[in-house]
Amino acid sequence: MKFGTAIGIVISIIGIAVGATMEGTNVMVVINVPAILIVLVGTFGATMAACGLPSMIRLPKLYMKCLMPADLDLVGRVNEIVGYAEKARRDGLLALDEQLASVDDPYTRKGLQLVVDGTDPELVAEVLEAENDAMRKRHAMCVQPFDKAGGYAPTMGIIGTVFGLVHVLTNLSQPETLGPMISSAFIATLLGVASANVVYLPVSSRLKGLSQEEMHFREMTLEGILAIQAGDNPRVVEEKLMASVPSAGGMWSTSADLVRFGEG
Amino acid sequence: MKFGTAIGIVISIIGIAVGATMEGTNVMVVINVPAILIVLVGTFGATMAACGLPSMIRLPKLYMKCLMPADLDLVGRVNEIVGYAEKARRDGLLALDEQLASVDDPYTRKGLQLVVDGTDPELVAEVLEAENDAMRKRHAMCVQPFDKAGGYAPTMGIIGTVFGLVHVLTNLSQPETLGPMISSAFIATLLGVASANVVYLPVSSRLKGLSQEEMHFREMTLEGILAIQAGDNPRVVEEKLMASVPSAGGMWSTSADLVRFGEG
Amino acid sequence: MKFGTAIGIVISIIGIAVGATMEGTNVMVVINVPAILIVLVGTFGATMAACGLPSMIRLPKLYMKCLMPADLDLVGRVNEIVGYAEKARRDGLLALDEQLASVDDPYTRKGLQLVVDGTDPELVAEVLEAENDAMRKRHAMCVQPFDKAGGYAPTMGIIGTVFGLVHVLTNLSQPETLGPMISSAFIATLLGVASANVVYLPVSSRLKGLSQEEMHFREMTLEGILAIQAGDNPRVVEEKLMASVPSAGGMWSTSADLVRFGEG
Amino acid sequence: MKFGTAIGIVISIIGIAVGATMEGTNVMVVINVPAILIVLVGTFGATMAACGLPSMIRLPKLYMKCLMPADLDLVGRVNEIVGYAEKARRDGLLALDEQLASVDDPYTRKGLQLVVDGTDPELVAEVLEAENDAMRKRHAMCVQPFDKAGGYAPTMGIIGTVFGLVHVLTNLSQPETLGPMISSAFIATLLGVASANVVYLPVSSRLKGLSQEEMHFREMTLEGILAIQAGDNPRVVEEKLMASVPSAGGMWSTSADLVRFGEG
Amino acid sequence: MKFGTAIGIVISIIGIAVGATMEGTNVMVVINVPAILIVLVGTFGATMAACGLPSMIRLPKLYMKCLMPADLDLVGRVNEIVGYAEKARRDGLLALDEQLASVDDPYTRKGLQLVVDGTDPELVAEVLEAENDAMRKRHAMCVQPFDKAGGYAPTMGIIGTVFGLVHVLTNLSQPETLGPMISSAFIATLLGVASANVVYLPVSSRLKGLSQEEMHFREMTLEGILAIQAGDNPRVVEEKLMASVPSAGGMWSTSADLVRFGEG
Repeated sequence: MKFGTAIGIVISIIGIAVGATMEGTNVMVVINVPAILIVLVGTFGATMAACGLPSMIRLPKLYMKCLMPADLDLVGRVNEIVGYAEKARRDGLLALDEQLASVDDPYTRKGLQLVVDGTDPELVAEVLEAENDAMRKRHAMCVQPFDKAGGYAPTMGIIGTVFGLVHVLTNLSQPETLGPMISSAFIATLLGVASANVVYLPVSSRLKGLSQEEMHFREMTLEGILAIQAGDNPRVVEEKLMASVPSAGGMWSTSADLVRFGEG
Repeated sequence: MKFGTAIGIVISIIGIAVGATMEGTNVMVVINVPAILIVLVGTFGATMAACGLPSMIRLPKLYMKCLMPADLDLVGRVNEIVGYAEKARRDGLLALDEQLASVDDPYTRKGLQLVVDGTDPELVAEVLEAENDAMRKRHAMCVQPFDKAGGYAPTMGIIGTVFGLVHVLTNLSQPETLGPMISSAFIATLLGVASANVVYLPVSSRLKGLSQEEMHFREMTLEGILAIQAGDNPRVVEEKLMASVPSAGGMWSTSADLVRFGEG
Repeated sequence: MKFGTAIGIVISIIGIAVGATMEGTNVMVVINVPAILIVLVGTFGATMAACGLPSMIRLPKLYMKCLMPADLDLVGRVNEIVGYAEKARRDGLLALDEQLASVDDPYTRKGLQLVVDGTDPELVAEVLEAENDAMRKRHAMCVQPFDKAGGYAPTMGIIGTVFGLVHVLTNLSQPETLGPMISSAFIATLLGVASANVVYLPVSSRLKGLSQEEMHFREMTLEGILAIQAGDNPRVVEEKLMASVPSAGGMWSTSADLVRFGEG
Repeated sequence: MKFGTAIGIVISIIGIAVGATMEGTNVMVVINVPAILIVLVGTFGATMAACGLPSMIRLPKLYMKCLMPADLDLVGRVNEIVGYAEKARRDGLLALDEQLASVDDPYTRKGLQLVVDGTDPELVAEVLEAENDAMRKRHAMCVQPFDKAGGYAPTMGIIGTVFGLVHVLTNLSQPETLGPMISSAFIATLLGVASANVVYLPVSSRLKGLSQEEMHFREMTLEGILAIQAGDNPRVVEEKLMASVPSAGGMWSTSADLVRFGEG
Repeated sequence: MKFGTAIGIVISIIGIAVGATMEGTNVMVVINVPAILIVLVGTFGATMAACGLPSMIRLPKLYMKCLMPADLDLVGRVNEIVGYAEKARRDGLLALDEQLASVDDPYTRKGLQLVVDGTDPELVAEVLEAENDAMRKRHAMCVQPFDKAGGYAPTMGIIGTVFGLVHVLTNLSQPETLGPMISSAFIATLLGVASANVVYLPVSSRLKGLSQEEMHFREMTLEGILAIQAGDNPRVVEEKLMASVPSAGGMWSTSADLVRFGEG
């Protein structure tokens, strides 16, 4: 499930490459150095100008995150939190202190630490929501370069093609070279449109989706921590949290009484 | 009424096919394997990259949901809820317990269960609204692949056409094959634009509309359940709920004093 | 004033037709059956797929509403409500009961009925706002098909044109027929762009405007009814309501001290 | 400063005209009656259909407002309000009554009248905010025709050009007339794109900006009136209001310690 | 890090220029006076018409701000505020008075001054938020000309190109000059698309990003000032503020337990 973006990009490229080959085109024509310079470097520069240097430095890591996202184990997290709730219910909130060291997720740990410290519930919510808010802003900044590149790349392709046509039109005296020259000019459009629609824009969408999932994950965690602090019954905590876990059948339940999108 | 999307797609395809045939085009030219590979597989891959693998696996089911949506019987639901309200009014809230097993809709059942359990009204509203919120998010995720495909398909068509033109332009020495080759290149554009505007985008719109209707259905149910819990008079419950049921004449009342859109 | 949309569409068509005729084109070329099939039927089908069947059945009525909108007499409504306010002030709220039968507008009547029944002010506001909310949703659903058609029509035009060009390109051997065939192919683009920009999109905008006006009309009515219930002085009621009536000089006052848009 | 829009439009037209003349084009070719009919009349009709007749009647006045906007003297208004605050502080709120007749701005006068009448502060705010809200709606309706025209004009240009090409393509037998005929067809595109981007869209942006400024002006006035009613110290009133006056150096302060956009 | 925009624009221009040169085009063809007049002057005029004269006068300064943004030292600011918090804790709020003169940042100084003056905490927040709000509006007005120019420039390019083609088409009798003339016509498109995508739009994005950063900076400062006034423990103040400082490793922490975007 995790490699959807990598697989999707590969499928898309294969589909285009095989189709183009069957049409008779040598797919290698896209390895056209002038077009690559104009489209890829031009897009890179414009994106850096739009987003600033640090954003560009983050890009390779983000590509990797996007191609191999960490799994978010919603059910595991629910079980973990229910475990803390049981312990807190049984032995008191302070008993969670000894477990803190073994909490893997720093966000959960921070939240439980605040609870153990006896922080006011409103302040706990405020601090954790501030964390979420900061994460949302960071994520938005991370997605921006892909969005921008997806917008600039096709126009860089057009710039490359128009430059090529300008060259062609000033050399009409050698008609036998016209075809290949125009053809070469169009490679820039190809590269621009394809890089935007096969890579930049899908990656941007995917990162936005991953960001939403992570936000959802954290909001569920936050709700659980607040429920623990409120001393809720562990069964109630579980029910509350499970409400935000998509059922096993995927995005919708699989029972017979589905209506419309499969919701009851 | 239910098959509007299926019928609409068929009408649209027939209109285009008959028109094209009358123009003299053999409609079968669209069965062009390279173009299909580039446009359909390219769009599929880019959409998977954008939305992740699980979203793609859901697609066939969603197509079916969209082509054959379940009916949402608003009036039936109102009557059902008014029935519960009468029983609750007559025999007390606990009397609803025995009816729970026969409640078809899991959402209604969950809500009534909470009421019967004596849950705090605010908590009932909170739990049911959390369910609605989760449904809205799931629906949005379900619609996304169609939206994305509707955006990627035309550009995949352009990629296919430009690849075709690049091929043509490097083979200008055989002018007699130019026409068919260019013609073939344009099939990709055709497929891209048509698949987006006849299938992907309309399906996306339709799913959004169905989602809104279902949300409306649930909000009405929620309002009814809260009214039952508050011990409202069944007549008041009915009046409240009927306010959100479009009148029999369709989207607007049919009385003579309609103003503008047919509202009073 | 009321026939702005009908007049506007006619002006636009006349402008285009006369201009095209002066250019030397026979305007009747647009009566091209294949193009009409592809563009009009294709758009109709895609719109039905997007909006569902009931939305399409409503369309003719909506066209008529849009071309001949009912007048919303804001000042008349204000006077009517001030009249009720005076009666209520003089003879008590219950005195309004006898006038209810003669209230034309069902919305006003419903509101006054609630007031006469001694309903809690908050509940009156809630019920009437729910009506407004339902109306807003219905209006949005009514406008959607025009919006969608305005988006699909130009692309259907492109589909028709590309189909025509594909046909032309596979028949390059008869160069003398090329011109008329290409010309015919472009009729589809013409029809698509013109139907969207002369009919669908303006009608959609106009319906949105009418919807806003009606919403404004209702909100003013609602405010008046609540003021009556609160026992406000009729002069105060009038002043309050007149604040939301554009002054006689049209959208802005005509006094000499206008600033900018003519506001004081 | 005030004539930015008029000057801008003139600069833009001069730039285009001089550039085109240097390219060798006779700029007078744009005086092409068929193209003007199609683009200008077509756009006018579609805009009227979209916005209704009254909106079109307002247009000439709005053009004038936009080209010669009244000055909004923020500092003058602040001083005026501080003057009232001083008088109210010294002689009591009722002392403002005698000054009311000399208040130029109807909005300020209305607000002070309400204050003098001893209206409840919340009601004063409510009435004045309702005025602002109504103004915002009116402004939005005033801007709409320019926005719409900016959207329709380029497509009308395309319609004109395609009509011209259709005519050309059916008359391929006289090749010597082809060039001028195609050239003439493109005039429609020129007119459509230029009228939208040199006139309609900039005017729309400018009107939006003027509307925001006027709204800001009124919000500041409202704040001042409420401060007077609350009996604030005139110095406090001044400080509060000056906070919303851009400093003398223009949009940002001119001190040396500017950070980023010139904010401290 | 600071010169990202300048470097990005240079990279983009170099990429395009080198690529075009490798294609064989003489890059100097873009120095085409008619095209420059139409695109640059036309865009300048339309932007002035849209944004008003003062906005245009600010432009050069904004370009410089964008190319060489001041550094926002978040950690330094946190330390500074924590220092004030310690002093206030130790010696009382009034002790901050003597430090006011040495506070560099006018915003911080204004806030501390209000605190020292014993202003009500709510009023402190209100005044400082009004400042932020005013800054946000000013920034939005500063960004607008770049946004608008990015939208107008490509269409000015199209206007220039169509004018050129119109000229070409009326001079078809000299076929040997056709190529260079069409080529020259396309320079306008090149300039329009390139200026928008390499300069205007990236600068607009960058200014928006800088504005957000500065807003974030101020919100953090505001939070710190309110915490000082509330007498919070300096350690708590520090922890609160550090939550909104991205960690040293850049946009995300570098610990091993990163999930997804690198958040815990």
